[in-house]
Amino acid sequence: MLTMQDALLALTRYWTERGCIAVQPYNTEVGAGTLNPATVLRVLGPEPWRVAYAEPSVRPDDARYGENPNRLQTHTQFQVVLKPDPGDPQELYLGSLEALGIDVRAHDVRFVEDNWASPALGAWGLGWEVWLDGLEITQFTYFQQAGGMSLDPVSVEITYGIERIMMALQGVDHFKDIAYAPGISYGEAFGQAEYEMSRYYLDDADVEANKRLFEEYAAEARRMLDARLPVPAHNYVLKCSHAFNVLDARGAISTTERARAFARMRGLAREVAQLWAARREELGHPLGLVEPLAAPAVPAVSAEVDQPGTLLFEIGTEELPPAEVTRTVEAVRAAVTEKLAGTRLAHGAVEVHGTPRRIVVLVPDVAPREPDAEKTVRGPRVSAAFDASGEPTKAALGFARGQGAAVAELARVVENGVEHVAVVRTEVGGGAVEVLGPLLASVVAELRAEKNMKWNDPKLSFTRPIRWLLARLGPVPVPFAVSSLVSGTTTRVHRTAPVPVVEVPTSDGYPEFLAGHGITVSAEARRAAIVARAEELAASVRGVVDFAGVLDEVTNLVEQPTPILGSFDAKYLELPGQILTTVMRKHQRYLPVRAADGALLPHFVAVANGAVDEDLVRAGNEAVLRARYEDAAFFWRADLRTPLQQMKAGLEKLTFADKLGSMADRAGRIAALASRLAGVVGGADETLVRAGELAKFDLGSQMVIELSSLAGVMAREYAERAGETPAVARALYEMELPRSAGDALPESKAGALLSLADRFDLLAGLFGIGANPTGSSDPFGLRRAALGAVSVLRAFPELREITLSRALSLAAEGLEASAGSGSVESVPAEALGVAREFAVRRYEQQLLDAGHDHRYVNAVLPLADAPARADETLAELSALAGDEEFAALVAALQRVRRIVPAETAGEYDPAVLVEPAEVALHKAFADVPAGVTGLAAFVAAAGGLTGPVNTFFDEVLVMAEDPAVKQARLGLLAAIRDVAAPVLDWQALGTALG
Amino acid sequence: MLTMQDALLALTRYWTERGCIAVQPYNTEVGAGTLNPATVLRVLGPEPWRVAYAEPSVRPDDARYGENPNRLQTHTQFQVVLKPDPGDPQELYLGSLEALGIDVRAHDVRFVEDNWASPALGAWGLGWEVWLDGLEITQFTYFQQAGGMSLDPVSVEITYGIERIMMALQGVDHFKDIAYAPGISYGEAFGQAEYEMSRYYLDDADVEANKRLFEEYAAEARRMLDARLPVPAHNYVLKCSHAFNVLDARGAISTTERARAFARMRGLAREVAQLWAARREELGHPLGLVEPLAAPAVPAVSAEVDQPGTLLFEIGTEELPPAEVTRTVEAVRAAVTEKLAGTRLAHGAVEVHGTPRRIVVLVPDVAPREPDAEKTVRGPRVSAAFDASGEPTKAALGFARGQGAAVAELARVVENGVEHVAVVRTEVGGGAVEVLGPLLASVVAELRAEKNMKWNDPKLSFTRPIRWLLARLGPVPVPFAVSSLVSGTTTRVHRTAPVPVVEVPTSDGYPEFLAGHGITVSAEARRAAIVARAEELAASVRGVVDFAGVLDEVTNLVEQPTPILGSFDAKYLELPGQILTTVMRKHQRYLPVRAADGALLPHFVAVANGAVDEDLVRAGNEAVLRARYEDAAFFWRADLRTPLQQMKAGLEKLTFADKLGSMADRAGRIAALASRLAGVVGGADETLVRAGELAKFDLGSQMVIELSSLAGVMAREYAERAGETPAVARALYEMELPRSAGDALPESKAGALLSLADRFDLLAGLFGIGANPTGSSDPFGLRRAALGAVSVLRAFPELREITLSRALSLAAEGLEASAGSGSVESVPAEALGVAREFAVRRYEQQLLDAGHDHRYVNAVLPLADAPARADETLAELSALAGDEEFAALVAALQRVRRIVPAETAGEYDPAVLVEPAEVALHKAFADVPAGVTGLAAFVAAAGGLTGPVNTFFDEVLVMAEDPAVKQARLGLLAAIRDVAAPVLDWQALGTALG
Repeated sequence: MLTMQDALLALTRYWTERGCIAVQPYNTEVGAGTLNPATVLRVLGPEPWRVAYAEPSVRPDDARYGENPNRLQTHTQFQVVLKPDPGDPQELYLGSLEALGIDVRAHDVRFVEDNWASPALGAWGLGWEVWLDGLEITQFTYFQQAGGMSLDPVSVEITYGIERIMMALQGVDHFKDIAYAPGISYGEAFGQAEYEMSRYYLDDADVEANKRLFEEYAAEARRMLDARLPVPAHNYVLKCSHAFNVLDARGAISTTERARAFARMRGLAREVAQLWAARREELGHPLGLVEPLAAPAVPAVSAEVDQPGTLLFEIGTEELPPAEVTRTVEAVRAAVTEKLAGTRLAHGAVEVHGTPRRIVVLVPDVAPREPDAEKTVRGPRVSAAFDASGEPTKAALGFARGQGAAVAELARVVENGVEHVAVVRTEVGGGAVEVLGPLLASVVAELRAEKNMKWNDPKLSFTRPIRWLLARLGPVPVPFAVSSLVSGTTTRVHRTAPVPVVEVPTSDGYPEFLAGHGITVSAEARRAAIVARAEELAASVRGVVDFAGVLDEVTNLVEQPTPILGSFDAKYLELPGQILTTVMRKHQRYLPVRAADGALLPHFVAVANGAVDEDLVRAGNEAVLRARYEDAAFFWRADLRTPLQQMKAGLEKLTFADKLGSMADRAGRIAALASRLAGVVGGADETLVRAGELAKFDLGSQMVIELSSLAGVMAREYAERAGETPAVARALYEMELPRSAGDALPESKAGALLSLADRFDLLAGLFGIGANPTGSSDPFGLRRAALGAVSVLRAFPELREITLSRALSLAAEGLEASAGSGSVESVPAEALGVAREFAVRRYEQQLLDAGHDHRYVNAVLPLADAPARADETLAELSALAGDEEFAALVAALQRVRRIVPAETAGEYDPAVLVEPAEVALHKAFADVPAGVTGLAAFVAAAGGLTGPVNTFFDEVLVMAEDPAVKQARLGLLAAIRDVAAPVLDWQALGTALG
Repeated sequence: MLTMQDALLALTRYWTERGCIAVQPYNTEVGAGTLNPATVLRVLGPEPWRVAYAEPSVRPDDARYGENPNRLQTHTQFQVVLKPDPGDPQELYLGSLEALGIDVRAHDVRFVEDNWASPALGAWGLGWEVWLDGLEITQFTYFQQAGGMSLDPVSVEITYGIERIMMALQGVDHFKDIAYAPGISYGEAFGQAEYEMSRYYLDDADVEANKRLFEEYAAEARRMLDARLPVPAHNYVLKCSHAFNVLDARGAISTTERARAFARMRGLAREVAQLWAARREELGHPLGLVEPLAAPAVPAVSAEVDQPGTLLFEIGTEELPPAEVTRTVEAVRAAVTEKLAGTRLAHGAVEVHGTPRRIVVLVPDVAPREPDAEKTVRGPRVSAAFDASGEPTKAALGFARGQGAAVAELARVVENGVEHVAVVRTEVGGGAVEVLGPLLASVVAELRAEKNMKWNDPKLSFTRPIRWLLARLGPVPVPFAVSSLVSGTTTRVHRTAPVPVVEVPTSDGYPEFLAGHGITVSAEARRAAIVARAEELAASVRGVVDFAGVLDEVTNLVEQPTPILGSFDAKYLELPGQILTTVMRKHQRYLPVRAADGALLPHFVAVANGAVDEDLVRAGNEAVLRARYEDAAFFWRADLRTPLQQMKAGLEKLTFADKLGSMADRAGRIAALASRLAGVVGGADETLVRAGELAKFDLGSQMVIELSSLAGVMAREYAERAGETPAVARALYEMELPRSAGDALPESKAGALLSLADRFDLLAGLFGIGANPTGSSDPFGLRRAALGAVSVLRAFPELREITLSRALSLAAEGLEASAGSGSVESVPAEALGVAREFAVRRYEQQLLDAGHDHRYVNAVLPLADAPARADETLAELSALAGDEEFAALVAALQRVRRIVPAETAGEYDPAVLVEPAEVALHKAFADVPAGVTGLAAFVAAAGGLTGPVNTFFDEVLVMAEDPAVKQARLGLLAAIRDVAAPVLDWQALGTALG
């Protein structure tokens, strides 16, 4: 059996044989191998670097006393950095798995989209997590930025999770059982340290001491930066980060402290990176410079095409994110179609397919050549081109010379009824191959995704590296180059195929050709195959597949789907279905299998890629799921043994935010605020009171600590099982809704009130302490909170008395009332105003995103303090679109507003008004009842004003010379303005309706 | 070429194949691999453990900005721990060198005594540094104690210095040039970090911040101990230690701070160790228990011996310290001789030889058996044994029964003229083999050295492990067992021999047998061989060998000396000879080669062991010496460019001790004190003044910072070259004398005064701040200082006015005068008293060690305040030994002292004395001149008192009834007592002279 120490040695040997230098782990605590200067500093700048090392990675937050089978406060990463990208890092990586004795042909090894970003390091990259039979064993990243600097060249970072790999290879269920060395287990070697360091991180670290250490380290880092010494500075940034992690694991970091600490560490890390890069430059880049890849020579066109043929164009990539497969297929279809339209090549319909590793364009019936075309260049008017004697003028001579034509060759064209001289030239049509080359090159050069990256190519940029190009027109190669790539006539099939690169002799029947190599190029076909086979497999256990959620993703995660039925122990069915399906879908991309009645069965369908050893892959996936379920079951059982009040008591240990107390304080405020809000709309019932008492108790459950996305879900489950009423359980669940844009909303009033209380407490609290979101930074999720509050208010028109202003002000009162514990003393009124405006902006965006006319949206925004009311007005407004009478009313009211100065009061002496039109208007206005709310009602009530207003303006000069008359006329108009004003913002409608 | 990363991999592979687990370096800074818990904690307790790992070892003090070719702030240790001692760790180690591609047959690989102790860890062990052609490449230690606990089982710790090994293997002169990996040098990989971390440690680390860190770490360690978590506690002890090292490298640690910090770290480390051991026990020793080696079966005696033969007895060891070779030869000779004398075996002269690996006993002519012997047991007197009728009495019957004899068998013996009954029994002599077995076993069991250790044997204890026993009487094996060892008939020759274990067929000609295997068993022969060959080699370069100092050691460092002539670049001869010879002798055990006029030649003789590739070994030794000389030359040149005042200014940065200022303050005080002391004896001259100004300037030189044993030597060299007078240069040198017990003393008065000032300042200062030495702890070297001061005072009788009291009190005045800078304000008088007493005790010990009669010593101790005066008195006392008149005087004076109460004043009214004897005594006393100093003078002056005193006591009753008479008589006697008292302590002489 390969022991863990063997594995580390094997990897070291494998990578040193491939030019990596082997270094030692860093000698201060790091959270990941990335932080070792051998990675985080060496990826900066233009010098080449290849390194491999083991890194014991310390994550205090993962401390579990050694009890959790999969989680450790110190786990071992094996880190490889390849700078520059060698062009075949995935293949090199697969070779390393073979060096570990993993048969990559039998196993299902997949590259699953996983992007990496460390705001603290000012770093990000795109890449994958590598799955071995469903188990994440490696992070594979193309480093794009570090220390806030773009990286050129790009580095490939490969990080192996050694304990996980060993558990899988050795088939053990607990990290302690890993055979670390002959005769000694991991637990024997490291178990005591794991327990004791867990104790330190979770229970015993001195909080104040670690805070002081944090400060000392940050100050030393600062000093070293000032001394222009990036290496010791980095060292202290790492120590800083570790001290922070210790405090975090001790639950001693509030949200605001976290944000501040992160900002500080980020700032230091960026300066370290910049200083390092500058110092390397000063040192003359001792390791030399990476040579960028050269532009390749383009082969000559090898043969003439003499009959229509199919264009085959394949863009070969490393594994694309599933969403990008679909998106790129569409983008390439559009680009090729458009670009072909820019040529004169006849061709059939453009067909585009995508898999994770290729975009395939097939265009049948491409003509061998463009037809010739005439091109006419217009010259001067004939009248100016020839003098009276018919001799060419200077103008004509000049034009002809300019066009390289003889005067005698000038033709005549009529344009806009005027005759001009012209030169008519025949453009010879291009050969298809010559035309297509640059066209396809431009398609590649212009490829873009949602998020793009660089690799070893000097110019291209895409979601993942493009590694090969294949282009043939029928049997004829279409040669072209783009940046460092040159089109060829081979494709790459499965990396594990005996011959992974194969010649493609012709474009004809390419999908079948690929099928012959085990690749289904059509997403539809893959999807259908998954559905068919998954259903077949599910039927074998009398189940049906629940395809919701992951089918699209899975379709684009493989080139040839191999659905495999796996099972898990039925005992896990005791867990709530949502836990089981969350794990299956979100973590594993498995399809759940249900009985006819919808109940989960202890089976799942995993979709492997290509021909694998199904038994091996099944066993692997089952083991992964078992481990995850075992974790969940452990938490479930532990939580069920814990009284709700006890879980809730745990909230006291969770710091929420500086000045805003603990999570327990926050839960208390939410309950109180929910009651106050209920007071606004008629009072709280028992459900609300009880749910308020329990608010957020599940944050103290082990399950939610582990799987935070189950907050609310677990509250409902645990509350029901603890004997709370279904209404209370439901309110607790709904309190967390909506969790994201588009998520379900509360349905019960109690749930809605708690949800609102939750969100308004957050908004008032954080704006109150000045923790406003800035730019893209919204660490407290205030945007989500504001959107959620607005959505709930919109969904509950019966709560319309709870306006944004009122709710925020009640929340502020609540914050101030609980201010005893050294927290916020008062929430400034301006802060509440800013918060309200922030929420209104979210509402505005919602409306715009829903496709509403921006003028309508603007018109109702003054009502947005009660979004439900604004919604109603918007609906009425939409219903009135195209209504001429309404349009006329709007125009009339806008006319009124335009003429009346803002400061004019709506008061006037009717006795002064004597002109018929003004009397008529006064009379019509007097018929409009006061205090009408709602647009429709207002239109019905005030529709009669349109005519009199218009007549008034036609016949009366508002600005009369007699000041009293003028004042009365303006007063009348102002009164009309004022009665219309609360309905909506009439000006904002512009001439939308006109 | 083997790169450094290859070497680390090769070692990892070698040791994992031998059962070691490979772990990662520790993830906080450690000064040595030993500190990794995989060593320092795992060596504790009874569990087995084998581990191997690389450890980047951080020693801030060794930071040199990457400029020094051999010294780095972070160097790489490769650490191996074998627990228990496998019995053949040296052989395993040699195998690892072969795994690195080192031909151990061609090279000179030697195990040179080097014991290890870390007071901070409460740890020590015995072992070696391993030399490869003179280069120290490995520390090899049998761990005896850690955390203050004795280790059972003992662990073997092997620590490779990887950079040094790589420099030697790759033949490069600077660590930066090591090929670390293919195409990348050590400097390229780590050069920038080396520079920048050097900057941090030497220049830029914030002293106050690191002091605070030290405190935080120590407090966290304390808390973790209280929480019974040894692992995090250890972690913080390491951090503490690193913070201390940073402060130390910054020159921010005073001697007293150092002592306090060490005491604190030591205390914590001990508690960690004890707690770890306790916790492992509580955990039930998860890795199991080491089985102690069983006692072996002893083979039966295989043959009868029927004629006298030679006893061959060999004790085979691992490399003994050279001094222990000699010592053990003598001890074994004595033991065997004495034990043989306890038998009745006839034998020839006992001959014992020793090499580093064996003690060989040869006893010729050992008789095949002991002769039989008669043994007589004495019974009751004959008169009591038989009654009048000649019948045996009960006494006789009882005796006979007790002896198991019949009454009839009772014999008679005469003792002291009285006839007794007796039983006479014949003891049959033992066969030689049977007699010798237990005898030799007891020799082994009783072997002891100055410092003893344990290894894998459960009972034996010696300076190094005993690995085999060989015993033959002629051709016959002498079987016996002792603890886990059993005697055999093989010996071990050179480890690198083709057959390293060989059968020894007979004891005859054993020295020749060994010679046949390249081993010279006689130290005399080895010594002669070294001398002869070295002289021959030196002659080849027209030189003579300077054998001073190391010949004895070298003789016992090898089993077969192979002197090799090496050379060094003549340019190094510009360096003072003392530097060159210090390096050669002290560091390398080379014999210097001199020209006929005594000048050094650029050659040396190294003595390798056995048959080696001489060219290879020469080249290696030359490279080592070159590196050392290059270092020294670098410092020498740098120092010569530095004005003396500038070096002296450097002393300000060297903290001396808390409250006692910097080293510059101390040097200033020394100068001032020297002047004051000169004032006591006639005043200071120019030499003293100038030397005082320069006092200790060389502590600021790079040479002395590197080679502190050259303090004083370098002062003389640099002062001379800077144009100071020879007298000043000499005084600066002599100021440092004596550096140890038995070292040379100052010869000039200025030197003596400075030496005294140096030592009295130290004594007054440190006793003044309460830093008294305790038990074995004397971190400030106060014992050495006191001894030195006393020695100088004894050597300079002309300085006798400088008494201990006077000097200490002047030193205290100096300390108080310089107290401006927040240092010691006043030195308590009691502290000075304690310091004086401390010095007196050292003087007493010197006298006793020199073999003086303890009564004489006690007698002169009252004079020890001026040791030279006490010396004179002691000399006079010795000269008077056996002088009867003197003895009579002493007895008389003692008689006087005995009768006179201590409080009686020496005053009397002569008129009251009327008895002839008292009048005679009064008269005799009146003839003794007052104020006689010196014993001889006093004896001459007061010798006349003896008779009158004795007569007085014979004839006069001192305690007369008349109080006035009694008072006068006592007063007379007291006056005599008082005149004698200053001469010496008469009572202390006891009856020594009587």
